[in-house]
Amino acid sequence: MPSGDIGLIGLAVMGQNLILNAADNGYTVVAYNRTQEKVTHFLANEAKGKSIVGATSIENFIAQLKRPRKIIILVKAGKPVDALIDQLVPHLEKGDIIIDGGNSHFPDTNRRYDELTKKGLLFVGSGVSGGEEGARYGPSLMPGGSAEAWPHIKEIFQAIAAKTEGEPCCDWVGESGAGHYVKMVHNGIEYGDMQLICEAYDLMKRVGKFTNKEIGDVFATWNKGVLDSFLIDITKDIMYYNDPTDGTPLLEKILDTAGQKGTGKWTAVNSLDLGMPVTLIGEAVFSRCLSALKDERVEASSILPGPTVEDVSPIKDKKQFVDDLEQALYASKIISYAQGFMLLKEAAKEYGWKLNFPSIALMWRGGCIIRSVFLGEITKAYKAQPDLHNLLFYPFFKDAVTKAQKGWRSTIGKAVEFGVPVPAFSTALAFYDGYRSAQLPANLLQAQRDYFGAHTFQVLPGKENELLKKGDWIHINWTGRGGDVSASTYDA
Amino acid sequence: MPSGDIGLIGLAVMGQNLILNAADNGYTVVAYNRTQEKVTHFLANEAKGKSIVGATSIENFIAQLKRPRKIIILVKAGKPVDALIDQLVPHLEKGDIIIDGGNSHFPDTNRRYDELTKKGLLFVGSGVSGGEEGARYGPSLMPGGSAEAWPHIKEIFQAIAAKTEGEPCCDWVGESGAGHYVKMVHNGIEYGDMQLICEAYDLMKRVGKFTNKEIGDVFATWNKGVLDSFLIDITKDIMYYNDPTDGTPLLEKILDTAGQKGTGKWTAVNSLDLGMPVTLIGEAVFSRCLSALKDERVEASSILPGPTVEDVSPIKDKKQFVDDLEQALYASKIISYAQGFMLLKEAAKEYGWKLNFPSIALMWRGGCIIRSVFLGEITKAYKAQPDLHNLLFYPFFKDAVTKAQKGWRSTIGKAVEFGVPVPAFSTALAFYDGYRSAQLPANLLQAQRDYFGAHTFQVLPGKENELLKKGDWIHINWTGRGGDVSASTYDA
Repeated sequence: MPSGDIGLIGLAVMGQNLILNAADNGYTVVAYNRTQEKVTHFLANEAKGKSIVGATSIENFIAQLKRPRKIIILVKAGKPVDALIDQLVPHLEKGDIIIDGGNSHFPDTNRRYDELTKKGLLFVGSGVSGGEEGARYGPSLMPGGSAEAWPHIKEIFQAIAAKTEGEPCCDWVGESGAGHYVKMVHNGIEYGDMQLICEAYDLMKRVGKFTNKEIGDVFATWNKGVLDSFLIDITKDIMYYNDPTDGTPLLEKILDTAGQKGTGKWTAVNSLDLGMPVTLIGEAVFSRCLSALKDERVEASSILPGPTVEDVSPIKDKKQFVDDLEQALYASKIISYAQGFMLLKEAAKEYGWKLNFPSIALMWRGGCIIRSVFLGEITKAYKAQPDLHNLLFYPFFKDAVTKAQKGWRSTIGKAVEFGVPVPAFSTALAFYDGYRSAQLPANLLQAQRDYFGAHTFQVLPGKENELLKKGDWIHINWTGRGGDVSASTYDA
Repeated sequence: MPSGDIGLIGLAVMGQNLILNAADNGYTVVAYNRTQEKVTHFLANEAKGKSIVGATSIENFIAQLKRPRKIIILVKAGKPVDALIDQLVPHLEKGDIIIDGGNSHFPDTNRRYDELTKKGLLFVGSGVSGGEEGARYGPSLMPGGSAEAWPHIKEIFQAIAAKTEGEPCCDWVGESGAGHYVKMVHNGIEYGDMQLICEAYDLMKRVGKFTNKEIGDVFATWNKGVLDSFLIDITKDIMYYNDPTDGTPLLEKILDTAGQKGTGKWTAVNSLDLGMPVTLIGEAVFSRCLSALKDERVEASSILPGPTVEDVSPIKDKKQFVDDLEQALYASKIISYAQGFMLLKEAAKEYGWKLNFPSIALMWRGGCIIRSVFLGEITKAYKAQPDLHNLLFYPFFKDAVTKAQKGWRSTIGKAVEFGVPVPAFSTALAFYDGYRSAQLPANLLQAQRDYFGAHTFQVLPGKENELLKKGDWIHINWTGRGGDVSASTYDA
């Protein structure tokens, strides 16, 4: 009789920690890894004395699992996932469940869902967030795919997931690749949150001339207020962490280049594909790109001038500066989440998913990297008004942004004056001011396109007349030259 | 004996005008369109009395062309191009040349180049820019693909192309899809230029309270200075254009929503793929996305507050305001082109193309939508320093940005204070300030990633010690908890 409640393949940090987590919750877990030594080492060390059994081969792994088999795979996204699925499939029976817990791109999950469904197998693509700590003590889990699989995995998933006010940070997301999609957006938002914190740190360091200890104290204070969140909390720890070698802040010795080839980029590309202005994540990804051009930046720093100390007014009131900064960070964060939920709403429409917004916010409320008190407010908002057009319209967020506005604008003004880059703060404000503009200058853009390419335009409601008829696509011969042929089949 | 020097399929506005242009230059052009009436109508009207002959079928079209046949196709990008190529191929002979003059996406051009090369046919993907006017009187042409085709089409291409100071705005771009790639970047830059002009217009309208006539006068003045360009020129015309119905500015009656599903979006996605911070085009595309959310914006305008007249200091010196604005527009434009050429440089590396930067700038100097005096300076810069690391390092542009800085920062400050969105101005400045920062706050980002996901980091040069070794990927146990497994196979 097989004893395994669940199996897991892939013993890197996330895999090991998820196994330990499941075992602590009373489940018997079968562990397998292509490199056998990893299994042996794990069983002899971290897994020792727990309800964890090792497998020596795929066959042996499968033989140890109760039916329907529940197999979590946690390997590098891309071809390794397909290769592993191909290895597993011949040994599985109808109704068995493969769960991809890696960071797969959602179109791949859509494809795998279709392929495995045809074979009578159930497939779940589950976002897993929380890093090594989360995986060990309660991650955020975002499962989507074969709905029939949910009753079989719900108990174990919700048991190992993080809890917030007693509620598990795990619920069924939706069909097909919806789970990985929501995880992708989560990661995009994570990119944004991290960039916002970086900008706040940079301003305190370069404009306020704060020490790392002082900056740590600010983050510690912020972590007791509206910004209370995992990322603010760890930033405080990082600010306080000194290199044991000489007792100075370790942070200042870390190379300032970051990669961006992952899920943040996917989110930015997807938002362009869906035509949603998710500008904050876009700027966060581009900021990582810019950080990677270290050599060019070093060269540029000696060539390109900027404001000097004499040009700018010094910070007189440090308390006010920090308070304004907190408001800038908070308002920008609200914009980022509003944009993220705009994207989710559009994705649900585009891909035909029924996404449950309060439960998505709840899944992100605990366990994952972007966990925060703030997400509790988003859950509340969508529970109170399920058809909310935009997060910014909900009184809590509207009031928060209203209150934050003065500090937000003042902070960006200071950064612009001092020559410190704040791409994410700035784009958030530009979005806010654009979003609340009934009228944007895109009328000029349409006129230009019609002028040079006969692309036509429509009339503004209320401005119709015999020349400018409602619903018509109008072409004007702006110059008196040129023909009357419109650009129906050619976009210049 | 066939009489046709060149054939063209697709008689929408661009196609008709290119044919007329070639005929005016002494070439005999064979015109064909799937819908025969278009051919008949064209021959009886615009083409009457010119060296233009019609074709009644694909066979008839091909029979009228001299060998090697040169066939320009100007149909909607995507499947129609493949369908037309499939129709043509059976009738062609080795060495015949198909030229796709549409807005094809460069990966499609790469693919078609490979397929047709295998069949012994020559394939050219050529960017064509200039709208209907350009096509008629001299477009910018950016051909790439089969290098063997160039000697056969060079004369006619350079004859019909725009001329700048006697030089044709057409040269060979490079292999495979390079021509369409360069056209894509051109269009991305065009999105950026248009967005910048829109922001200037919006500020004059909303902050300066200028009339359209006054704004037109400003653009007229700017068009005599550093901003001298086609887009500034037509913007002036648009500002002056009054609706004949009531004599008020037509522009103010145009619906302010723009599409963004084209080449601008491709450029933004490609820059994310190549990891290049082409932020200005990114924001320009997102601004179009935001413009499209008209209903939401109208709703938001009555809900979300912003600065009121009492909050902000009025514009006292209109002349200064306009001068600052000119500098903001100019500096932002320099950043956008610097970013565009960064992208081209990376693409040349990534795709193995030998792109000729001075000649790309020259191709854009005249004929096309982004034509400007400014592009002449870029040509000069790359001719003088072919290995220039960045356009911003060239004295002309460095000096221009240095001089523009005060007005640029002041303009953004005003916009932030007044609550008028300037996403492109802002992102350009954030890029400038980031690019000239030897040190960016991405060190914090790396610390955070290592804290929650064991992602490791590298040491800053000059800060190495026994704990932080040069070249090592370092993981710190920031909390004293957690394991020692690094995230080699899993990216959270």
